[in-house]
Amino acid sequence: MKALPLLENRRETLKEKTEALVQTLGRAPTLAVILVGSDSSSQIYVSNKAKAAEKVGFNSETFTFDSETPPKKVFELIQELNSNPEIDGILIQRPLPKNFPEDEVMFWVLPEKDVDCLHPENIGLLVTGNPRFYPCTPAGILLLLDFYHLPVDGKVACVIGRSNIVGKPLASMLLARNASIIQIHRSTKNPEDLCKLADFVFVAAGSRNLVQKSWIKSGAVVVDVGIHRNEQGKITGDVDAESIQSIAGAISPVPGGVGPMTIQVLLENTFSAAVNQGS
Amino acid sequence: MKALPLLENRRETLKEKTEALVQTLGRAPTLAVILVGSDSSSQIYVSNKAKAAEKVGFNSETFTFDSETPPKKVFELIQELNSNPEIDGILIQRPLPKNFPEDEVMFWVLPEKDVDCLHPENIGLLVTGNPRFYPCTPAGILLLLDFYHLPVDGKVACVIGRSNIVGKPLASMLLARNASIIQIHRSTKNPEDLCKLADFVFVAAGSRNLVQKSWIKSGAVVVDVGIHRNEQGKITGDVDAESIQSIAGAISPVPGGVGPMTIQVLLENTFSAAVNQGS
Repeated sequence: MKALPLLENRRETLKEKTEALVQTLGRAPTLAVILVGSDSSSQIYVSNKAKAAEKVGFNSETFTFDSETPPKKVFELIQELNSNPEIDGILIQRPLPKNFPEDEVMFWVLPEKDVDCLHPENIGLLVTGNPRFYPCTPAGILLLLDFYHLPVDGKVACVIGRSNIVGKPLASMLLARNASIIQIHRSTKNPEDLCKLADFVFVAAGSRNLVQKSWIKSGAVVVDVGIHRNEQGKITGDVDAESIQSIAGAISPVPGGVGPMTIQVLLENTFSAAVNQGS
Repeated sequence: MKALPLLENRRETLKEKTEALVQTLGRAPTLAVILVGSDSSSQIYVSNKAKAAEKVGFNSETFTFDSETPPKKVFELIQELNSNPEIDGILIQRPLPKNFPEDEVMFWVLPEKDVDCLHPENIGLLVTGNPRFYPCTPAGILLLLDFYHLPVDGKVACVIGRSNIVGKPLASMLLARNASIIQIHRSTKNPEDLCKLADFVFVAAGSRNLVQKSWIKSGAVVVDVGIHRNEQGKITGDVDAESIQSIAGAISPVPGGVGPMTIQVLLENTFSAAVNQGS
């Protein structure tokens, strides 16, 4: 399950829809990205998001603060962006420095501009079946499954991990698609036994090579959300891809699988925010 | 797992805490209940809530509308209650008449007064691990488990059902307590096989006698959230209690198990709303 063919499709479609929207809005959809500190991975992510936005014809504005910046100052900028009608989506790159209170930060971006889908209201809307935006990684995974004609309806889906950005919203979206859910994590005593029951396995544990052949039912679809760099500098996932190759029915590779899809969902969320703002 | 001994404890504690709060607030915690239409079950529920509130020393105000009332009129009342500093908690009794748009109604009660925990923001806060209020039935279930010293940490918990008021928030709260989750529903093809893996079974399917002995692992704890009246007029649950008696380690009865706990949680939510409003 490589992302590239799907990604090219959706980027092209989004670019065309954006051209049309620019005509009606009189301006391009605009994404504001906020980066605090100088974490090198974060800098790369932010720059990739800005580039991807521009490629489909969006405006992107990146605001960077050094890691000593008081949270209040970042909050004030976000308030300005919230009330600026020319800004459609706002994304705060995580992780933030430790003195930023996450339980307050998650309320900073106006729900209507929260294209990263992290505001509690947007999570609640998703969980209860009235989504405003889609969480980027889980939605990217479902796009991949759709593209490769792998419906989860009536199937058993095992989600490994329970983060707020992947494991929890992914389980919620799979449930909404009529999958039966098995959700396991570091406190699970028999993860292998439970995982082996699943027709679909989604691994977002943040633990390199966690999932081995013995975890996988023959023919199961395996989606790897992990991203690690091994001793040889090679990028790998949470799944031991070599070990499961002979047993899995389909595998999303790392790199080139889930990762590239997340930015696409971010842009699609921003597009729909722009449509709503314009209406 | 009968509710009564626990309930008596918690009511007594809440009554004492309320007496103290009345001293500092200068008034009693106040719960407003809104009933639209003349559904007889709803009338009983509303009256039970009002009585329970008064028993612990709260004020309760019930507002009733006939089923022909335009939604706008109910909305206007709720806006008044939202801005009234003497109202701590507001509950809209469900089901509402069909012309009430649930996707709007869930936003009507101010999140800070949403003691039924149905506002998307409150659901999002719960799911992400920052609960403001607790959903009444799931929280009542966890109180029962605590009282009977039945910790779910590291255990496999099967949730049967996926409603917004029970199945989904319950799975979320069990996950937060380090249970591994199996969530099944009407689209699950092998519910019995999956259920039989669980150390804890929570049945909120709305289907009388759905769960039989063959679904239950020996020694499992079974919590029955269903409520039905059988042909003989006897109240029963989603579990065939007689059939599983010889195999389950513990069973919450219907009636007298989960049901009575939910109102207690509603009152405890209202109490904490009053504390916050007073601070």
